[in-house]
Amino acid sequence: MASLPDPITRLISSLGQLPGIGPRSAERLALFLVQSESGQVKQLAESLLEARERIGFCEICGSLTESQPCGLCSDSERETHTLCVVETAVDVINVDKSGAFKGLFHVLGGKISPLNGVEPEDLRIAELESRLKGVEEIILALGTDVEGEATSNYLALRLKDNGVTVSRIAHGLPAGSGLEYADDLTLVHALEGRREVQ
Amino acid sequence: MASLPDPITRLISSLGQLPGIGPRSAERLALFLVQSESGQVKQLAESLLEARERIGFCEICGSLTESQPCGLCSDSERETHTLCVVETAVDVINVDKSGAFKGLFHVLGGKISPLNGVEPEDLRIAELESRLKGVEEIILALGTDVEGEATSNYLALRLKDNGVTVSRIAHGLPAGSGLEYADDLTLVHALEGRREVQ
Repeated sequence: MASLPDPITRLISSLGQLPGIGPRSAERLALFLVQSESGQVKQLAESLLEARERIGFCEICGSLTESQPCGLCSDSERETHTLCVVETAVDVINVDKSGAFKGLFHVLGGKISPLNGVEPEDLRIAELESRLKGVEEIILALGTDVEGEATSNYLALRLKDNGVTVSRIAHGLPAGSGLEYADDLTLVHALEGRREVQ
Repeated sequence: MASLPDPITRLISSLGQLPGIGPRSAERLALFLVQSESGQVKQLAESLLEARERIGFCEICGSLTESQPCGLCSDSERETHTLCVVETAVDVINVDKSGAFKGLFHVLGGKISPLNGVEPEDLRIAELESRLKGVEEIILALGTDVEGEATSNYLALRLKDNGVTVSRIAHGLPAGSGLEYADDLTLVHALEGRREVQ
């Protein structure tokens, strides 16, 4: 039985390392790519290299950027008295897209997870503390899993003596969802976080 | 609201042109790639270019290959008296993987589809006719949709005066499936194609 030519096998194995691309998808993509226009493949390869080379992390907030400091940190229209703390650089994009936050961001670079060997000193917490001057409120926008909760609690405790308000984004029912799709813990959070209707 | 840096936007748009990659997947892949190791991204870009440059179509059978003729056509252990006719170069790989066919292949490059402007002369039928010397049986392994059926019928009619047997792969229940999942047409084909139990 003849097998696939080597260059295709190598391409399949490279593609298979991407998140969400299983062996079948990798094969389908590779076979599509070797049969598509040469110019299109070249363009894809170039955008890959260009994006990887030109994008880095902002020295101040830790988000993805082409320039130092990033567009958000250098935007004079953002409110400088609130800081939104997120886990990853991608979270910055998602929160910013929502349009509900006008302040500045701070990327932690992960969450405290002793089982995976991530201790508080592995995160950008010291960098966060050095940015507190003039900040009135820190909004913790971390995940709702155990490690996200632990990181939120740790940060709230560590930051409380700095004279800033530390808040946490609400946990509850997601938009457009019904009670029948919510798990018990989400309902517990939603009930605990109830607010009086004005 | 700040948007994503340009190189990422360009990468997302390149990735979004791949089959099965929607806007959300493209964004997730792009953000993963700009944050992953530089070496890994470089390797992916290189395998892309290498595969596209080195892979072409076999001049004889039309399948994907690095060399001319392809590994299948130049394999002296394949039976030269049967030809399996398939639609695409990828079908060759799938039929060959099954291990059930030991002869040679011929890729049509599509199926007759007047609505999409594909006429018989757009397919590799003349090339097929030029390969008939010494061939005893032509197995048509085309799709079971209307266009695949029409192409099978057209080929059977056109090839029958050449003194070769023209057969068609069986249509029926797929392996591991129950009657409850089969549509009416599949059952019609399965009943029509019934064989006496020996």
